[in-house]
Amino acid sequence: MDTVGISEDGTKLVLIDQTKLPGEVRMLQLSSQEEIREAIYSLRVRGAPAIGVAAGYGAYLAAREIDTEDYGEFLSRFKEKKEYLASARPTAVNLFWALDRMERVVTAGRGKPVGQIVRELREEADRIRGEDILCCRKIGENGVSLLKDGFGVLTHCNAGRLAAVRYGTALAPVYVGMERGMKFRMFCDETRPLLQGARLTAYELCSAGADTTLICDNMAAGVMKKGWVQAVLVGADRIAANGDTANKIGTSGVAVLASRYEIPFYVCAPRSTFDLNCKTGADIAIEERPAEEVTDLWYQKRMAPKEVRVYNPAFDVTDAGDISAIVTESGVLRPPFTSSIAELFKREEQSPDLGRDS
Amino acid sequence: MDTVGISEDGTKLVLIDQTKLPGEVRMLQLSSQEEIREAIYSLRVRGAPAIGVAAGYGAYLAAREIDTEDYGEFLSRFKEKKEYLASARPTAVNLFWALDRMERVVTAGRGKPVGQIVRELREEADRIRGEDILCCRKIGENGVSLLKDGFGVLTHCNAGRLAAVRYGTALAPVYVGMERGMKFRMFCDETRPLLQGARLTAYELCSAGADTTLICDNMAAGVMKKGWVQAVLVGADRIAANGDTANKIGTSGVAVLASRYEIPFYVCAPRSTFDLNCKTGADIAIEERPAEEVTDLWYQKRMAPKEVRVYNPAFDVTDAGDISAIVTESGVLRPPFTSSIAELFKREEQSPDLGRDS
Repeated sequence: MDTVGISEDGTKLVLIDQTKLPGEVRMLQLSSQEEIREAIYSLRVRGAPAIGVAAGYGAYLAAREIDTEDYGEFLSRFKEKKEYLASARPTAVNLFWALDRMERVVTAGRGKPVGQIVRELREEADRIRGEDILCCRKIGENGVSLLKDGFGVLTHCNAGRLAAVRYGTALAPVYVGMERGMKFRMFCDETRPLLQGARLTAYELCSAGADTTLICDNMAAGVMKKGWVQAVLVGADRIAANGDTANKIGTSGVAVLASRYEIPFYVCAPRSTFDLNCKTGADIAIEERPAEEVTDLWYQKRMAPKEVRVYNPAFDVTDAGDISAIVTESGVLRPPFTSSIAELFKREEQSPDLGRDS
Repeated sequence: MDTVGISEDGTKLVLIDQTKLPGEVRMLQLSSQEEIREAIYSLRVRGAPAIGVAAGYGAYLAAREIDTEDYGEFLSRFKEKKEYLASARPTAVNLFWALDRMERVVTAGRGKPVGQIVRELREEADRIRGEDILCCRKIGENGVSLLKDGFGVLTHCNAGRLAAVRYGTALAPVYVGMERGMKFRMFCDETRPLLQGARLTAYELCSAGADTTLICDNMAAGVMKKGWVQAVLVGADRIAANGDTANKIGTSGVAVLASRYEIPFYVCAPRSTFDLNCKTGADIAIEERPAEEVTDLWYQKRMAPKEVRVYNPAFDVTDAGDISAIVTESGVLRPPFTSSIAELFKREEQSPDLGRDS
């Protein structure tokens, strides 16, 4: 069951409502623009790749609704609907990326019958989805070479299937390994304050049949010290040119602990995550989020005194020196990252392949 | 306002109901054995020293209720009441320690009028309370020498006033410093799963007028990396002969991070915390607690999938190598701890002073 896709008859966006997890597995079938925008806005679908796929199909379904044969009118109404979808999450880069990609199909289609443009939109949305699956699959195949049967694997936050379509990034090596009959003992940091590890990662690993243990973030050191962890796998929000990696808050601490206990720490991310405009992690801006996420938990009752100040950064930056390898769809990068990353992108300039960010 | 004490007329145990914090500051005045036992059982009073003081006054108030002049009957009814109080928390060592100490007053009082024994019980309970205040005060005075005005200080869990009577252990240096006009920027780890940092430490520091910032446990690395923390202060549940220290789960990870960021990490604890029968931390048994503390938060709604396994240790062991100093009421111990701890207890054998554990 993929996280996000389209119904067999091609008329509905199908997705797992992640706000109901882990208590309830509810598949939503959405056709109207209002429903699709609301699903993105309310985080029923989340994770950059999954949002991109939802936006692609959302734009296609929007185009299907436009009842005209006139290209000019079609283009103008398509743009309106695109802006409407784009307004769902103003900071979700992948949302705009996917919608812009869909719009380029429409602008490139000038002169073609509207019906054909709509068919091409469907193909483009399928392509966005297919590229994500392929890209994550490759990350999984590259990353599984770093794991051994029976490994204890610790992960932080959710960079699994639920953040993408089928494999995810950080968990792709685990899923590919399991397909090959390998067994892992998985440890999920619950990932305060929003508990993506408890709610999403623990859910998706359990439903994939993995041996899964949930821990509070502050238990990672103890679990490592006990010798239960042989590898750490995490995703990335942005990777600087020197390998410094921004990811969910808490990741950098896990990396320091892994370094202390001599456990390999692997970042798994598509090439599109690298931002060579950032020389180091110091160039990456860190979003700070509302205090209530920390003080009010998932409960009506406040858990901290009213007068206390709260520091609630959404991400932190892991020093490149704490990262053993960066696993991409194009291969495994090793330190020193400044040269291995530069090499990756130089190679690509010379022979561009059809990656997700092409 | 002390955490626990006795009413002016000497007829009621007075304590802050910690289960209502931080939303409500409710002082309880308890006189019956049932009420006092329930307060200990339900964690309305918690923290080893505070439990000891509550038990001392509880035993005194119990003795007051015994309506007899016959010593034999008094002793036997006192023992019954003592057992009843002891059953409130079967793993709270300080509860038994205080009750045994009270019982010794009764057994040593054989031949004295019952009324006089009751008065001596009151004096003994006052002494238990006074010793805690004095001991914590000394820890504070010894520890404040390690701090400078303006320091950022990070603490984990609650080893403050609310765990004791007036100063606490880990926070005693902070309170003594504030009395002397020093200002600190305090960071409280929320301390999952039971959130003692958010509920108790943030509350007591805010009400003491300290500049207080609450963070999730996984944000400590980021706060240290930013250079906001100049010292870490934590308490201890048990300290082995080599300095390895068992304390609330998450402490050892904070210590590893502090070591990485070259921030001094101080354990503050009374001499009674040392257990020389444990050669190293490996000899200290770690309690594992119910999964529901992690999966159900403070909420009715479960936050993790039903099928997931949970590892929920209450404590972890911090390597002596990550500890910069251990602050006791008798002075500041420095590495190598095996010799500084041995030296402390050798010195004591030669000239025993009236410490809390004498």
